[in-house]
Amino acid sequence: MKKYLLTPGPTPVPPEAASKEGLPIIHHRTSAFGKIFEEVSEGLKYVFQMKNNVLIFASSGTGVMESAITNLLSPGDKLIVSETGKFGERWWKIAKAYGLDAVVVKEEAGAPADIGKIKKALAENPQAKAVYTTLTETSTGVVNDIKSLGEIVSKTGAALVVDAISGLGAQELRSDDWKVDVVVTGSQKGLMIPPGLGFASVSEKAWKLVEQAKLPKFYFSWQAAKKSIATKETPYTPAISLIVALAESLKIIRAEGVENIWKRHQQLADATRAGVAAIGLKLFSSAPCNAVTAVHVPQGIAGSAIYKKMRDEFGVNIAAGQGEDLKDKIIRIAHLGYMERFDIIIALSALEMALTQLGYKLEPGAAVAAAEKIFLG
Amino acid sequence: MKKYLLTPGPTPVPPEAASKEGLPIIHHRTSAFGKIFEEVSEGLKYVFQMKNNVLIFASSGTGVMESAITNLLSPGDKLIVSETGKFGERWWKIAKAYGLDAVVVKEEAGAPADIGKIKKALAENPQAKAVYTTLTETSTGVVNDIKSLGEIVSKTGAALVVDAISGLGAQELRSDDWKVDVVVTGSQKGLMIPPGLGFASVSEKAWKLVEQAKLPKFYFSWQAAKKSIATKETPYTPAISLIVALAESLKIIRAEGVENIWKRHQQLADATRAGVAAIGLKLFSSAPCNAVTAVHVPQGIAGSAIYKKMRDEFGVNIAAGQGEDLKDKIIRIAHLGYMERFDIIIALSALEMALTQLGYKLEPGAAVAAAEKIFLG
Repeated sequence: MKKYLLTPGPTPVPPEAASKEGLPIIHHRTSAFGKIFEEVSEGLKYVFQMKNNVLIFASSGTGVMESAITNLLSPGDKLIVSETGKFGERWWKIAKAYGLDAVVVKEEAGAPADIGKIKKALAENPQAKAVYTTLTETSTGVVNDIKSLGEIVSKTGAALVVDAISGLGAQELRSDDWKVDVVVTGSQKGLMIPPGLGFASVSEKAWKLVEQAKLPKFYFSWQAAKKSIATKETPYTPAISLIVALAESLKIIRAEGVENIWKRHQQLADATRAGVAAIGLKLFSSAPCNAVTAVHVPQGIAGSAIYKKMRDEFGVNIAAGQGEDLKDKIIRIAHLGYMERFDIIIALSALEMALTQLGYKLEPGAAVAAAEKIFLG
Repeated sequence: MKKYLLTPGPTPVPPEAASKEGLPIIHHRTSAFGKIFEEVSEGLKYVFQMKNNVLIFASSGTGVMESAITNLLSPGDKLIVSETGKFGERWWKIAKAYGLDAVVVKEEAGAPADIGKIKKALAENPQAKAVYTTLTETSTGVVNDIKSLGEIVSKTGAALVVDAISGLGAQELRSDDWKVDVVVTGSQKGLMIPPGLGFASVSEKAWKLVEQAKLPKFYFSWQAAKKSIATKETPYTPAISLIVALAESLKIIRAEGVENIWKRHQQLADATRAGVAAIGLKLFSSAPCNAVTAVHVPQGIAGSAIYKKMRDEFGVNIAAGQGEDLKDKIIRIAHLGYMERFDIIIALSALEMALTQLGYKLEPGAAVAAAEKIFLG
């Protein structure tokens, strides 16, 4: 059976990039690799929309999230976490592993961050070193208003740290213009390569915190990574084959243009939302993001049953709800990375057929038709 | 120019494994990936020569070294580090980053660990939680006597932790039989795939330390990794393309047999040593390992000049000395991973030609002839 991957990470890899992965390994302490590393560094600045260098680690996204705790904070420090789902939760769980109790501003699943509440938390905790939040919360399909947060946080001494793991390259994010101090992401989402690389961008304001931060770290030390950037390399052996593939996917991103990429994701998200609405399904999120659409499942049908049928009988791999509480309540259709119109048509068609087989009454073709209408503009 | 990679990591990837890297990404929470993960887990146990599961991380080797500090120790704990080069040094540097002062048993560069001294250190520090050492010290080409260390350390309450990053799959290592508690390694050496995966095997004795260890960790938590093994997955998104390639390289390893692989590396090392001796060069190490041969350069010729000439004019990438003190003093020729007789012939031939051009007097063909003699047995 032909397979289709529509999960919010990993996402499909363009053949142009995939074909580079298996090329003979070049050593990382050579000018040949240095050239690729420099090219990748420039490309990342463009995608991150920032002037400063982006640090690269062999790691999953969680590893670089941890690095944004240990490189910015010291024992006893205050931090504010804006939690809008499983990935917001991860911020304070990491902080807790390092003995820090975060001030958590939590929203109900499906709701975006309440900027007013975070403003209040900042006023009540003027000594807070950083505010940690999420651009697109993969577990609920929510987008948070990072621009407004940037306006508020930049007026304080705190750094704004954004987990853009599933959002970068899908949802508008202007790191410098929006005054975001730290952006972390992974390779297997909007950057369109396999998982295994983690990235962190660090503003001048954040570097000042880094210099004071006393939480322990070694492998994920940002100062070590920064030092080695001057020599066009990484402190430890980098994931060479992935970086070589990344150089290629960054070329693809440049050719399309990051603003066009945001627009494409907007259209794919619009089409998905219109499609599911046309067959009577409701969005889970009140502020839906452009990376993944979370949808309430029809009463009486388990989300995991829809997910499994689509995957096993139609070859279409979407995502079920994340965690026990959401597993059967929602399904999540990603439109993230190397995706275009017909990926959405396939997902909606498979959803129509799977739901029909599970006994849900719908008009066959209705979801696809609604999506086509969006695509025709 | 055709390129030849003879560095002690990264090492060449067999085409059978490299061709898997660019295959369409499969999601990591599927039975298809679970099957590959299980296959890889079994294969790793075989290479590590141990019954317990091997934990897998998206990381370089240094990351898993750090995990062997944070998952085994608590603030205030004693540890003993056997330092025979740059990588032994890394053990105590990581410990220091976490506020621990190691008892360091250091040897001169080129000498192997003195087992008697470590025995003494253990007797003087009976409360030591672990002894950290290196199987093959990449920076000096030394092999340490892990079997003897295992005999000594197993009689104490301490765990024996071995960095086998450049040694696993090249140098004999029988984790269970030799009573090694923790073995860490990376993917880009004897496992013959690109860099980006780190591994740690953990004995029952070591798991008891893990349960008590209070140093902070999140991404590299062994307990989280162990928990997820039961479900045939990793706690966070794994480096899927590398794991898929690893499944293939582990098949190649099984087909050859790990004892045959050790013998092959022994022969390649013998041939390299005979080759350099035949042109009047001396080994740097008094206990040379089978992963990489470190060689004193002729007086008056800088090691980095030989390294650069071989790389830039002959396409043969060996390694210079590591660190400022050894950079020009030695060169290092690796015979590690996907290598056989003619890789050594190429390296020795390139070395002969480069040295001749640099003004060193030698009999052309002498190094190659000495290697051929070893190969003919």
